[in-house]
Amino acid sequence: MTVSISPAEREALIVLAQELADTARVETLRHFRTAGGPETSNKLAGGFDPVTVADRGAEKAMRDLLAERRPQDGIFGEEYGVKRGESGLTWVLDPIDGTRGYMSGTPTWGVLISLSEELADGPGRPLMGLVDQPYVGERFLGGFGRSELSGPRGVMPLRARPARPLSEAVLFSTFPEVGTAEEGAAFARLSKQVRLTRYGMDCYAYALIAAGQIDLVVEAGLHPYDVGGPIAVIEAAGGIVTDWTGGPAWRGGRVLAAANHEIHAEAMKVLNG
Amino acid sequence: MTVSISPAEREALIVLAQELADTARVETLRHFRTAGGPETSNKLAGGFDPVTVADRGAEKAMRDLLAERRPQDGIFGEEYGVKRGESGLTWVLDPIDGTRGYMSGTPTWGVLISLSEELADGPGRPLMGLVDQPYVGERFLGGFGRSELSGPRGVMPLRARPARPLSEAVLFSTFPEVGTAEEGAAFARLSKQVRLTRYGMDCYAYALIAAGQIDLVVEAGLHPYDVGGPIAVIEAAGGIVTDWTGGPAWRGGRVLAAANHEIHAEAMKVLNG
Repeated sequence: MTVSISPAEREALIVLAQELADTARVETLRHFRTAGGPETSNKLAGGFDPVTVADRGAEKAMRDLLAERRPQDGIFGEEYGVKRGESGLTWVLDPIDGTRGYMSGTPTWGVLISLSEELADGPGRPLMGLVDQPYVGERFLGGFGRSELSGPRGVMPLRARPARPLSEAVLFSTFPEVGTAEEGAAFARLSKQVRLTRYGMDCYAYALIAAGQIDLVVEAGLHPYDVGGPIAVIEAAGGIVTDWTGGPAWRGGRVLAAANHEIHAEAMKVLNG
Repeated sequence: MTVSISPAEREALIVLAQELADTARVETLRHFRTAGGPETSNKLAGGFDPVTVADRGAEKAMRDLLAERRPQDGIFGEEYGVKRGESGLTWVLDPIDGTRGYMSGTPTWGVLISLSEELADGPGRPLMGLVDQPYVGERFLGGFGRSELSGPRGVMPLRARPARPLSEAVLFSTFPEVGTAEEGAAFARLSKQVRLTRYGMDCYAYALIAAGQIDLVVEAGLHPYDVGGPIAVIEAAGGIVTDWTGGPAWRGGRVLAAANHEIHAEAMKVLNG
């Protein structure tokens, strides 16, 4: 499906995405690095999956703004689930990507927002979106013809970097333990062939591809809200994001983000080798 | 040995440390995230140890300022080596800690500075120092009665957090591959007992202990310039930094940094268990 959106409406949607991010910033920063840490509860009984009041507060604030301004659109959020829309468009929201990083005080978690096509069974292709780091004050935005970073140094264009051999590439993933044993083995094969592998950056790693600083991000077990914003930003900057077989990554799962088609193809070969 | 320093001289030394960091900021930011990346060369023929022009430029600028203002002090720097002093004090300088992070565009590398006692065979106890993150604009400072963070939110006191059980602690290390096989096994034992282990933050992890956000940092194979600034900042914030047996960590090697004595003792038991 393809939704027709006028140039004026595109501009308005970009403005709204930024207003959503501004709203989320207030909520996330209110609880960031507070003494004793934010109140948390465990979503998963077995593991450690902190949900902070900031997480919920930020998504609630974004949903309230959308209810007022775009009631016709769907919403697909991490904390409060799915609201179907009527416009063919849906907002994919992750109020805090990298909750563990957030709780540890790092400056590499982020608010992820994308405006995506809405398909019968969930979010489709991201059309425009952003990765926002409230503490640093950095916002990576892409889509509808725009591709830019606003941050401590002002506003500048985003451009993923050109092809280089795998042996000179920089690869990021959030955890050294990537997905299942099979997925972990595939990641290890790729890690052995690149120049440098780094961990722990959460969504910030995707932003670094768009900013032309690194070449690859590989992850597994992701949700749609983990990738909507990053896909919009990276594609607008000339990069490419797919699953490990080259198909769409809109729904999450195994994700391969790359600075360009050449290194994407090389990495995919190794992951499936 | 103990050097006598007047209150007025202490204040002047704190000001100078900040001037050194300001000077280094200009050099490191000049080359940070520049198109195509900073020029690099490999220090180690076998491995990947990038040395950037920024690294060298920042240390050179700090040394020039010290030559002008404190010619009587020693200098122990990563890039340009040792200059013996006559005052009993030496400046321990790491112009860019986390060069790999710097080259990847992350905001978690830093400039490390400490003013340490100078012993016959190298730097002794750090008396005052700082961890500076130029891109975020954050400076963690400690020593001579001061303990503070200046950053995006203004100036605020630094205070490491009180004791909690190991099972609720957050542990950081730069790489999942910590030191030798034996060191790696000790780290893995500790990692299994804490609530959360994270990687990839370089010196920023030490700053997070001082800021009361995390409990432990464990590393191995460090140099004196990797730890001088962090020790000063963490100790001033009420934390503790030693080697894995409880001895001084001024010379690097195996480092255990902790938010308080209780969790330090618990972690040390596991590392040596």
